[in-house]
Amino acid sequence: MVVILKDGTDRSDVMELMEYLDAFNVSVSVTEGEHTTILGLIGDTVSLSEDDIRAFDFVEDVKRIQEPYKAANKKFHPNPTVVEVGDGIKIGGGNFQVIAGPCSVESKEQIIEVAKAVKASGATLLRGGAFKPRTSPYAFQGLRAEGIELLLEAKKETGMPIVTEIMNAAHLPLFEHVDIIQVGARNMQNFELLKVLGKQEKPVLLKRGLANTIEEWLMSAEYIMAGGNKNVILCERGIRTFETATRNTLDLSAIAALKEKTHLPVIVDPSHATGVVQYVERLSVAAVAAGADGLIIEVHNNPKKALCDGPQSLTPAQFDTTMEKIKKMHKFMSEEISY
Amino acid sequence: MVVILKDGTDRSDVMELMEYLDAFNVSVSVTEGEHTTILGLIGDTVSLSEDDIRAFDFVEDVKRIQEPYKAANKKFHPNPTVVEVGDGIKIGGGNFQVIAGPCSVESKEQIIEVAKAVKASGATLLRGGAFKPRTSPYAFQGLRAEGIELLLEAKKETGMPIVTEIMNAAHLPLFEHVDIIQVGARNMQNFELLKVLGKQEKPVLLKRGLANTIEEWLMSAEYIMAGGNKNVILCERGIRTFETATRNTLDLSAIAALKEKTHLPVIVDPSHATGVVQYVERLSVAAVAAGADGLIIEVHNNPKKALCDGPQSLTPAQFDTTMEKIKKMHKFMSEEISY
Amino acid sequence: MVVILKDGTDRSDVMELMEYLDAFNVSVSVTEGEHTTILGLIGDTVSLSEDDIRAFDFVEDVKRIQEPYKAANKKFHPNPTVVEVGDGIKIGGGNFQVIAGPCSVESKEQIIEVAKAVKASGATLLRGGAFKPRTSPYAFQGLRAEGIELLLEAKKETGMPIVTEIMNAAHLPLFEHVDIIQVGARNMQNFELLKVLGKQEKPVLLKRGLANTIEEWLMSAEYIMAGGNKNVILCERGIRTFETATRNTLDLSAIAALKEKTHLPVIVDPSHATGVVQYVERLSVAAVAAGADGLIIEVHNNPKKALCDGPQSLTPAQFDTTMEKIKKMHKFMSEEISY
Amino acid sequence: MVVILKDGTDRSDVMELMEYLDAFNVSVSVTEGEHTTILGLIGDTVSLSEDDIRAFDFVEDVKRIQEPYKAANKKFHPNPTVVEVGDGIKIGGGNFQVIAGPCSVESKEQIIEVAKAVKASGATLLRGGAFKPRTSPYAFQGLRAEGIELLLEAKKETGMPIVTEIMNAAHLPLFEHVDIIQVGARNMQNFELLKVLGKQEKPVLLKRGLANTIEEWLMSAEYIMAGGNKNVILCERGIRTFETATRNTLDLSAIAALKEKTHLPVIVDPSHATGVVQYVERLSVAAVAAGADGLIIEVHNNPKKALCDGPQSLTPAQFDTTMEKIKKMHKFMSEEISY
Repeated sequence: MVVILKDGTDRSDVMELMEYLDAFNVSVSVTEGEHTTILGLIGDTVSLSEDDIRAFDFVEDVKRIQEPYKAANKKFHPNPTVVEVGDGIKIGGGNFQVIAGPCSVESKEQIIEVAKAVKASGATLLRGGAFKPRTSPYAFQGLRAEGIELLLEAKKETGMPIVTEIMNAAHLPLFEHVDIIQVGARNMQNFELLKVLGKQEKPVLLKRGLANTIEEWLMSAEYIMAGGNKNVILCERGIRTFETATRNTLDLSAIAALKEKTHLPVIVDPSHATGVVQYVERLSVAAVAAGADGLIIEVHNNPKKALCDGPQSLTPAQFDTTMEKIKKMHKFMSEEISY
Repeated sequence: MVVILKDGTDRSDVMELMEYLDAFNVSVSVTEGEHTTILGLIGDTVSLSEDDIRAFDFVEDVKRIQEPYKAANKKFHPNPTVVEVGDGIKIGGGNFQVIAGPCSVESKEQIIEVAKAVKASGATLLRGGAFKPRTSPYAFQGLRAEGIELLLEAKKETGMPIVTEIMNAAHLPLFEHVDIIQVGARNMQNFELLKVLGKQEKPVLLKRGLANTIEEWLMSAEYIMAGGNKNVILCERGIRTFETATRNTLDLSAIAALKEKTHLPVIVDPSHATGVVQYVERLSVAAVAAGADGLIIEVHNNPKKALCDGPQSLTPAQFDTTMEKIKKMHKFMSEEISY
Repeated sequence: MVVILKDGTDRSDVMELMEYLDAFNVSVSVTEGEHTTILGLIGDTVSLSEDDIRAFDFVEDVKRIQEPYKAANKKFHPNPTVVEVGDGIKIGGGNFQVIAGPCSVESKEQIIEVAKAVKASGATLLRGGAFKPRTSPYAFQGLRAEGIELLLEAKKETGMPIVTEIMNAAHLPLFEHVDIIQVGARNMQNFELLKVLGKQEKPVLLKRGLANTIEEWLMSAEYIMAGGNKNVILCERGIRTFETATRNTLDLSAIAALKEKTHLPVIVDPSHATGVVQYVERLSVAAVAAGADGLIIEVHNNPKKALCDGPQSLTPAQFDTTMEKIKKMHKFMSEEISY
Repeated sequence: MVVILKDGTDRSDVMELMEYLDAFNVSVSVTEGEHTTILGLIGDTVSLSEDDIRAFDFVEDVKRIQEPYKAANKKFHPNPTVVEVGDGIKIGGGNFQVIAGPCSVESKEQIIEVAKAVKASGATLLRGGAFKPRTSPYAFQGLRAEGIELLLEAKKETGMPIVTEIMNAAHLPLFEHVDIIQVGARNMQNFELLKVLGKQEKPVLLKRGLANTIEEWLMSAEYIMAGGNKNVILCERGIRTFETATRNTLDLSAIAALKEKTHLPVIVDPSHATGVVQYVERLSVAAVAAGADGLIIEVHNNPKKALCDGPQSLTPAQFDTTMEKIKKMHKFMSEEISY
């Protein structure tokens, strides 16, 4: 960490800051220029907060050199994390999976029909919302506990592991037989929930927040990992911008940045990112080309009757066509391109 | 609600959509142009979702006319809501209050010292964080339950009602003697938490999310109000932009927009919005001039030693100077300007 | 276009609006609901401005149905535009090209060395900045007229057509032997410049503005096309967001959206979009997978000594490796995937 | 400037960088930590570019300490700039002015009627667009040269100095009798235009770009000032965000930040910032309270018939009411509040 002091800072002020830093395990070297004094802080600065140092009014600026995350940091864990879901299904480290299913679980018939269809097309995990975060209190909120029951029936019927979203730590017991617990974009910084998920063992699929930076996202992964659970899958799902042709702006550069910064697997959700069914295919294929470890795609047997997010759901037939291209691209990438 | 159909939509498709709409309590009028058919939906469209209608693939676009919020809507409740905090302290409808205190409660001495100081300067409510949302799991997370105890001691000592943030619905029993429960920006769309707060009676101070629109914010207020709790105070605290001179961009236009759209009181947090102590005064005074119903300002007896957010905390002396200007401006506004 | 009137609008107001609309060549149908009146405007609404209609104070909202662009609109021109650069080099409609070269032209030796290197690796057009838009007036502003001379020498030496940026319509005579004229992001809405470029015949490479929507970008293309020049190539180069791990956020969804909305070719600039040399390769390959008609990549023979944008410039060796992957991906896409 | 080197950087690399820096007039001090080497660059670093240094691949990060602007920098010019417009009208350094007028000049009658009305209400300068930047080539582009003629007639009739926008350096001769030349948001980084305006003497009103930071804005002012013209007036007009209730988000914090960073006067444009007539008054008053040196407000004698931007234009009667409040607030601020 580098601390830049204002012109004219007293020696006594510098001493006060040095004393403060003594409480942390860092050593300090001082460079004095004509107008500026620069302190170099060497050691484990993860527990130091830039803001705390900025509070000294003679501090001009503070610049972190070390990343503030450790468990998620590729520097300390160069090998890619492989998340094992069970039944030999793995995500990361060269293992690529497609998760598919409806936005919401609506009925036994619906979820089983979609599950069979997406499995036939090549998806290996089933998604479906039981607890649904909806902007409006008057909109369908999901079948909740019953939705999870129906997902489990679809799992029994098809053998597919299931992924579903948690919105409240108190619901955790309901997720006992769920295979991957999803944290939605709106809860990416629900730190109380993250802490609870860090103390259990199921893999967590952590979506990026609507307006969060990659560093903040990794810090949320760090919350889970700091609790002991190393099985975190990051999911890029678009960030909010001023563009209106798409619901959000899918940030595929995030794959490049994450592959440099972290060992955690990264999957992409082109359905929520675009909100437009016609754009899902191209962005699925492009995400594979960018090196994503998986995709999560919305499929509904009758998008018009979907209780949420119809406009972004593929029909099973559309999904089948898209999967053909995804599979071709994944095979091509595996054989021909390495980054 | 207006539904625009694509060129060449079949009559049978239109019939299918009409049938779907029958389930809701709306009547439909049809305008047929040469290339476009337009449906006008008349009635209570709050429970209709634009996205659900967009899922019909022959729908070109959907445009809501009625606002999707009812309880928070000024059209249906033209009189301003006045939130009564107790001891005659009211917010809204011409009642203006300044809430002040440290980012975090750190010790009994600290919170009582700050409380006395801000009271002496004219603040009428005490803020202080017991549960702290921190980006890093390694940063100070607040004194939690103990922090609330210390706030209650400061309340007993000074008589000031207290405002503090909740991060987990399970903690609600700890808030029994808290006067206003704050929902932080990161939890603005933690719908499970909002629902719980809607079923209890204490006033809720609802901060705007980092990247949320005014309509989404009002929908979150609606979540609380739909549960029965009408005592919601909105708090503008800056939105995330690409500007770096300030931590966030304070959106004072939001006051103008909210005063047109809702009857709920609106307060402003210049400390979190700017993140820079030198900018707090000007924006406090400007917020009063824009018609805010109150302010919430961070004050710390020793900002350098603050366990969080030091750079944005005023000292008691700075707060006193700022309060002088706030009081003058509030008096001037009350006597001279009405919007 | 749909115009929604406020509840309680007088018949005389409606008549006033109808009269106003008479001046334009549109017919109006009226739907009266209990609380809302909806006007459907049928005809050529391109010359009508939503804002002008919103100025009638009894208008609640206006919704455009037709896109505001015509010449660039795929609806009216379903076949893809193929821009012919000369020497049989084409962009669009299945013709894919890679443009490469340094940020700035710095010397004869530099530009010829880079030109030969990128040609050997497979690039077919040479880029290089002669006029450089720099945030600081104290930064290198380009060799200007001399830079164009040097580009022309490199063209003579290698036979590669050249692409370079114009910043001032008065400089147009200097571009006589340039093959493609680039309009930079900061000039995307320099309408005076666009008009001039519409009245000459050279192809224009139009970069997306830092914070512009796809519709605004197409409207800028429309400015050029309305003048008579149909040879516009769109270039996605990242939009400004709050993310800091990359200089901008590359919006690959824009390719999907543009392929639906326009017949113009779309190329991608991963160098400016990311600003990070390590991310250029993945995003180049992903852009091809998303269906881009070309790429524009920065290459410098000595990035450390580059007079601008060094951190995002590939060395010739890095470019060669990247080109291998781009070529493989392009071949694969041509043979195996069609959208 | 602080340069942080990557772990394991060779001594020979450090020497290479030192050699590079020798060409600039800076001295370097080196701090070697266990894992990091930090270089402190002391001297005049304005001509050094962070990006150029980042291009050395062993450089981890670069942090500027000195601001990159000099002429606009308050540190070097602590006294506020007072721009003299003529006839004793001054802006800045305690001199407050209101500029008002229509979005576009449409006819002699219109501009003279509006000019007389706004003068009667207390405006001291007349604005009016002759050259209009419009997103669509099919929209009204302004009366251009004729518009300037009409403004000059209104000036003769009322004695008010005039402010109007330039879009093309080639038009400069037409601005001979214009009093303040406006650079619009879309041209804030049209550096060729800024350079030309720096070489003439008329005051320049420089609007902030739609998505530009305060530092970039000051760098654009620096372009003008570096040419010799010190008479720059900054105009905050809202930045683009995801909020849709207002056209842009007015950033009043920018006043606080600018008053700390620069000596140039700052005015506010609430009309373009909000795009909503009902919000203009509150934000005008709030801007004065925040310490703006002036306002620029759109007024049209018949907003419904305005050829552009009707929805944000006040009628003369509305402007008169708003001016009463602005005048009261300005008087109050002058007498009672100093920052």
